[in-house]
Amino acid sequence: MKSTRLFLLTLFLVCFTMTAQSQSTNQKHIRVNQERIEKRIFELAEFGKDTTGKGYRVAYTKGDVEGRNWFMEQMKNAGLEVTIDAAGNIIGKRKGKNPSLKPIAFGSHIDMVPDGGNYDGCVGSVAALEVMEALKESNIMTNHPLEVLIFANEEGGTIGSMAKVGHLTADGLQEKSQMGLTYSEGIKVIGGNPDAISSSILKKGDLKAFLELHIEQGSILEQEKIEIGIVEGIVGIVWWEITVEGAANHAGTTPMKLRKDALLAASKFIIAVNDIALKTEGKHVATVGKIDAMPGAYNVIPGEVVLGLEIRDLSFEKIEMLFAEMEKQAATIAIETKTKINFQRRDNFVKPALTNGNLQQIIEKSTKTMGLSTKYMQSGAGHDAQEIALICPIGMIFVPSMGGISHSPKEFTTAVDMANGANVLLQTILELDKE
Amino acid sequence: MKSTRLFLLTLFLVCFTMTAQSQSTNQKHIRVNQERIEKRIFELAEFGKDTTGKGYRVAYTKGDVEGRNWFMEQMKNAGLEVTIDAAGNIIGKRKGKNPSLKPIAFGSHIDMVPDGGNYDGCVGSVAALEVMEALKESNIMTNHPLEVLIFANEEGGTIGSMAKVGHLTADGLQEKSQMGLTYSEGIKVIGGNPDAISSSILKKGDLKAFLELHIEQGSILEQEKIEIGIVEGIVGIVWWEITVEGAANHAGTTPMKLRKDALLAASKFIIAVNDIALKTEGKHVATVGKIDAMPGAYNVIPGEVVLGLEIRDLSFEKIEMLFAEMEKQAATIAIETKTKINFQRRDNFVKPALTNGNLQQIIEKSTKTMGLSTKYMQSGAGHDAQEIALICPIGMIFVPSMGGISHSPKEFTTAVDMANGANVLLQTILELDKE
Repeated sequence: MKSTRLFLLTLFLVCFTMTAQSQSTNQKHIRVNQERIEKRIFELAEFGKDTTGKGYRVAYTKGDVEGRNWFMEQMKNAGLEVTIDAAGNIIGKRKGKNPSLKPIAFGSHIDMVPDGGNYDGCVGSVAALEVMEALKESNIMTNHPLEVLIFANEEGGTIGSMAKVGHLTADGLQEKSQMGLTYSEGIKVIGGNPDAISSSILKKGDLKAFLELHIEQGSILEQEKIEIGIVEGIVGIVWWEITVEGAANHAGTTPMKLRKDALLAASKFIIAVNDIALKTEGKHVATVGKIDAMPGAYNVIPGEVVLGLEIRDLSFEKIEMLFAEMEKQAATIAIETKTKINFQRRDNFVKPALTNGNLQQIIEKSTKTMGLSTKYMQSGAGHDAQEIALICPIGMIFVPSMGGISHSPKEFTTAVDMANGANVLLQTILELDKE
Repeated sequence: MKSTRLFLLTLFLVCFTMTAQSQSTNQKHIRVNQERIEKRIFELAEFGKDTTGKGYRVAYTKGDVEGRNWFMEQMKNAGLEVTIDAAGNIIGKRKGKNPSLKPIAFGSHIDMVPDGGNYDGCVGSVAALEVMEALKESNIMTNHPLEVLIFANEEGGTIGSMAKVGHLTADGLQEKSQMGLTYSEGIKVIGGNPDAISSSILKKGDLKAFLELHIEQGSILEQEKIEIGIVEGIVGIVWWEITVEGAANHAGTTPMKLRKDALLAASKFIIAVNDIALKTEGKHVATVGKIDAMPGAYNVIPGEVVLGLEIRDLSFEKIEMLFAEMEKQAATIAIETKTKINFQRRDNFVKPALTNGNLQQIIEKSTKTMGLSTKYMQSGAGHDAQEIALICPIGMIFVPSMGGISHSPKEFTTAVDMANGANVLLQTILELDKE
């Protein structure tokens, strides 16, 4: 009897181990449906098109509402429990084996900039939905509850994710959004409740993690022929408004040597910004994207020029160091050109947000399992994950953007790249679920 | 009897010579009334002021009409025969001893740019009137008939003087002037007759000469402490619209080295324009006064920049030479910045107009008689004399502009400088009258 019992116990253990191994093996081999991802990207692109076929799915517009309704329908069909929080964010929940565990969340946004593209935000949103579909089809129930988060009005300044971490103030709600309504009015249009905005707030530790798959919006992956970008962090952003004061004067009667040409001084500064950014080691970027010269006539020497300077980096100290060097060179330029150069730091700066080291490693492990090439990189663009980083560990996965183009109808990512990203997202969630 | 006759003849000759000498001596010592000039400048400044006291005597406005009426009244009081030609120019005639001689004309304009100053045009106009007053008070009748010409709408593009040389076309008359009316409508408002515009045309040789006293509108005379500028010519002006094509891209996700920044390329070109103008010998000026960067946001690398370039010089060949050098450097900049730079020459160029050498010498002689310091210089700004140069010899006299400021309420010229200029104008006319 003793041997029989021992035999049965051994048999049980062998079977159990085999089943466990088999499930683990199965999980590693689960793949998303590439065709379904591509089909949904095309379907979503139909919402918010204008009469000429250009995409205007700006938050709170009719197209945004219709796109959201369609997306929520897809979520329900995938078996998710769908709700809209007070800020208008869409939440799609899937139960886990252990309801006491904190949910693993993932997602992105489906609103777009005016005349924008069909991949920014949508790839991460459709992939999040696809992860849920793949788990359902594989009959896998994770230990942790899972949540798809589709943030409202990302392009208007990560409004939905700001609300989720308590950064959307009563004053902020009264500001005008891009399409004309105030944020408060817009949130009502998409089914939120601005009067109860605080009910949408997540506290620190409410989520186990937040993962966001996104298109790179740059050309590094494409140029280096890399399939997956592992994001180290989302850059901080600081803006300065720079006023160059010269002397407006008659362009015909003022000799070259007697001029105080504000545009000449501004040009020297623009070149200095570029030179400093180029010669300094690192992944930072510095841009003068805005210029206004007054009075702005062929026959008048510009008396005043206003520039917009932006510096981005993962380190705030680096941004400050670059700016200090630019300010120093501006002082020299001012003397040389007989002008005054004043800097006004705008107060809408964005702090850098680092991704979680453990999540970076899990993402890397997932890519290795699938034999995909990877590169650690920073996100030069802002994302909802940046806000969510305040309340839980975040991870971000990038897939290539063709030609580095974004915020344009020419934005494009191949179906293979989208599926690669979605598979990495899926495998990262499953790996994280084991913890 | 013979001796008596001889005595009487001798006496007559002595008296005649003494009288002639005395008149010549008198003429050399005739001076304008400085206080009256200043008083009239202040009186004229009252017309067209807005409620805040700023000057808006733009051509064809109520202020312009009222200013013109006041000026014509002053002309009549000075004994002139006043008419308005079909283009709205005011003509004030004074008979000469010999009606068969061609008239000596002189004058300027009394319209102004919006929020302009009280000296541009007005000094030459009030001084022309003052010359007539001084001659009347000294009981001097010149050999040649004299004409004060107050040209209509100089600031709108030398419209009145263009009409006088047949350059105002039927199409041109239908274009909108600065204050909203078409030139045709505006000309009616100031008492002209656009339907008979050709009746205002002067043919080559209709005038003996045209002289214009004007404020310098630059700071050369003031800086060099010179009292009178003898103008060698009025510069030609050519404009180019320059389009720099780069690639608009996300300022956060596009590494510094992968950018095609149109604003960076434009900045390098603006500096090249200044460097070329500075290093080339001469009195030319080159200005980039206009810049537009698209899309013009802090967070987007400018994809397109449009610049306005102007070059002025007394020689068209020099303008072409300078431009060729700028175009050559633009080609290098385009390669270096991975952009395209295209030049579009505007068709509104102004040909240089040289002043008459003989008139320059008479002006110089007049200044020497009065012990005034002089400098030969070019006029960097356009003037009515530029058009009139097509039908008769022209001469121009400059007086200092304080701080070189013009087209601004801060425009200022001292009463002494205005009187100096008016006296030089008067003496030049008297000297020319002897020919």
